[in-house]
Amino acid sequence: MDFIINRKILLDALSKVSRAVSPKNPIAALIGIQFDLKSDRLILTGSDSNMSIQVTIKDNLKVNQKGAVVLNSRYILEIVRKMDSEDIHMTILDGTFTRIEGYNSKFQLNGMSSFDYPRIDFSQEGVHFTIHSFLLKEAIEQTVFATSDKETSQAYTGVNFKAQNNILDLTATDTYRLAKKTIKTDSEAIFDIIIPKKSLNELSRIIEKDEVIDVYVSDRKALFILDDTYVRSRLIEGTYPDISRLIPQTFNHTLSVDSSKLLKAVLRATLLLDEKDDYITLTMDNKQVKVSSFSQSVGSVEENIYDALFNGDPLKISFKARYLSDAIRSLNTDKVILLFVGTMRQFIIKSYDQKDNIVDYSMHLILPVRTYD
Amino acid sequence: MDFIINRKILLDALSKVSRAVSPKNPIAALIGIQFDLKSDRLILTGSDSNMSIQVTIKDNLKVNQKGAVVLNSRYILEIVRKMDSEDIHMTILDGTFTRIEGYNSKFQLNGMSSFDYPRIDFSQEGVHFTIHSFLLKEAIEQTVFATSDKETSQAYTGVNFKAQNNILDLTATDTYRLAKKTIKTDSEAIFDIIIPKKSLNELSRIIEKDEVIDVYVSDRKALFILDDTYVRSRLIEGTYPDISRLIPQTFNHTLSVDSSKLLKAVLRATLLLDEKDDYITLTMDNKQVKVSSFSQSVGSVEENIYDALFNGDPLKISFKARYLSDAIRSLNTDKVILLFVGTMRQFIIKSYDQKDNIVDYSMHLILPVRTYD
Repeated sequence: MDFIINRKILLDALSKVSRAVSPKNPIAALIGIQFDLKSDRLILTGSDSNMSIQVTIKDNLKVNQKGAVVLNSRYILEIVRKMDSEDIHMTILDGTFTRIEGYNSKFQLNGMSSFDYPRIDFSQEGVHFTIHSFLLKEAIEQTVFATSDKETSQAYTGVNFKAQNNILDLTATDTYRLAKKTIKTDSEAIFDIIIPKKSLNELSRIIEKDEVIDVYVSDRKALFILDDTYVRSRLIEGTYPDISRLIPQTFNHTLSVDSSKLLKAVLRATLLLDEKDDYITLTMDNKQVKVSSFSQSVGSVEENIYDALFNGDPLKISFKARYLSDAIRSLNTDKVILLFVGTMRQFIIKSYDQKDNIVDYSMHLILPVRTYD
Repeated sequence: MDFIINRKILLDALSKVSRAVSPKNPIAALIGIQFDLKSDRLILTGSDSNMSIQVTIKDNLKVNQKGAVVLNSRYILEIVRKMDSEDIHMTILDGTFTRIEGYNSKFQLNGMSSFDYPRIDFSQEGVHFTIHSFLLKEAIEQTVFATSDKETSQAYTGVNFKAQNNILDLTATDTYRLAKKTIKTDSEAIFDIIIPKKSLNELSRIIEKDEVIDVYVSDRKALFILDDTYVRSRLIEGTYPDISRLIPQTFNHTLSVDSSKLLKAVLRATLLLDEKDDYITLTMDNKQVKVSSFSQSVGSVEENIYDALFNGDPLKISFKARYLSDAIRSLNTDKVILLFVGTMRQFIIKSYDQKDNIVDYSMHLILPVRTYD
């Protein structure tokens, strides 16, 4: 292997593929990035076996001799990041011992054999559909935070992607709160899969420009193709629970309120609380809307929210503050509406301007706890 | 206690005094900030018993009723930081139960009795001298990083302040490297004290504006007076070792080099090394200057430094990279000069433009290790 490449282009590619690499992977080769140099292109691959990222570089590359090697992800990324040269010259000196040379720097790195790197299937198989990059990025960001961290129920650690009738639904829940995003698509594709949250977080970070992403869904994997980058994720096995019956259809109380005012009041109401125990109470009637919290040892907070519009009989409802602050931030809109059934029933938050039958619909559901008295 | 105060002024004062507070202090009252409201001023005090900070507020304050209370440092700081109002109204409701009220927020905090707060001696006793704030800040920043973290040798965990003959010397060492700053003063004061590093770090952070600082040094404490803020530090007991004999006076080799080029080369040379084991080698003759490192398991680095001027017989010397990078950063100058006696003798780094007999002189000394071959 012997090639010369533009430093910034190599750095950009390494930054992407290293996102899939876990530095503590028990498989030694997977702590590295695979360099596979063909006569006309360099293929870089990083993987933690659950997710894999591959970038192909064709431009600003001069191939002197084909070859392949696996180099420690952290070291090669730092070397390329910190080198001063415009171009970088990489050569295998002996077996897997690799020289990385720039204008005034010369690094020699003990590599690993490319034969020890697992073969990763990036084939374009299964159902195909396309989606705009920024729409996918937003959909991931508006749902993935609501997934569960508990490994006991695998399905909830991922986001459900369900497509039918030209509608793509993304759903995430930890069983205490739920986030749902609905997107109208041109595709006739039908599927119902669960993608692990880590894959989606990294995919979302890699999406940087406005483009159309090709997606291939099979029983074994989801493959996202962005320009020169392939992102492959395993799927979580099993069926995602049907959550439609959890979503109330009729409501007895509504609260319309400025997002930023509500968010600030909620955050202040948690100042005296432990993060694990951040329960707050909304007390609403047609005269006053109050957010409050109480801690026996520390003290209490009471926030009045002016210019909030409440409809319905007086209502008092308690819940985890972070569920509401996450939902408000995720909706990213000037004004939100909260829809309530009753004091111990799950409630809904969505954008005030949200119509139910449009291209792009986002909704959050929160389960309350027993109200303090 | 009942008063109304401008929020930003209170926040600024709380930010300062809370720097002295350690949230895990075994003395409960010291986890709090003391509010002592007199008829014409509010005195805020924070302390961890080693260092104490006191701010007095006279303006933008309306006193309704005198009183005192101790409030948890973290909570009161966060409350005042996050409130929306321009003014804040604070009242003791009952005993130590305190209300903090703004435009739309009402906090009630369980406080502690001011009688349980230790009496802290801020008296202006002992030897007096003055120093410009930014000169003191720079002197601290150029020395304090070289102190030791090891509690086994107390003296080395602080910075030695030694004044005589209108000269103030600050010296810090962990016995492997040493930083020394010399300042000419107008003061005739004579003292030789050791100030703990934590006190100096916090003092340096509090210094924000160009002013003259009054300093009082006694056997028991150093007191720094900045405008409305008092910073008091206990002293480390014992005598600081005489380090003058460690500083070589004649040299056999010198290296003059661009600071930024040398720093970048040193940082790249550590990329393959553990932080604990970051030994690099300088190899110098009158044709070439090289920085190199070697790790059996990972690989090697070689950096050529162009435009470096070396005088003397060829020299190869190894040392901890961080000692050199800390020194270069601390000198904060375009060009540095390194002065060597020999391969196993301590060497000196200072600014290339440094004259030995001026108002403000900064010098670093590094102990080498046996050179790899």
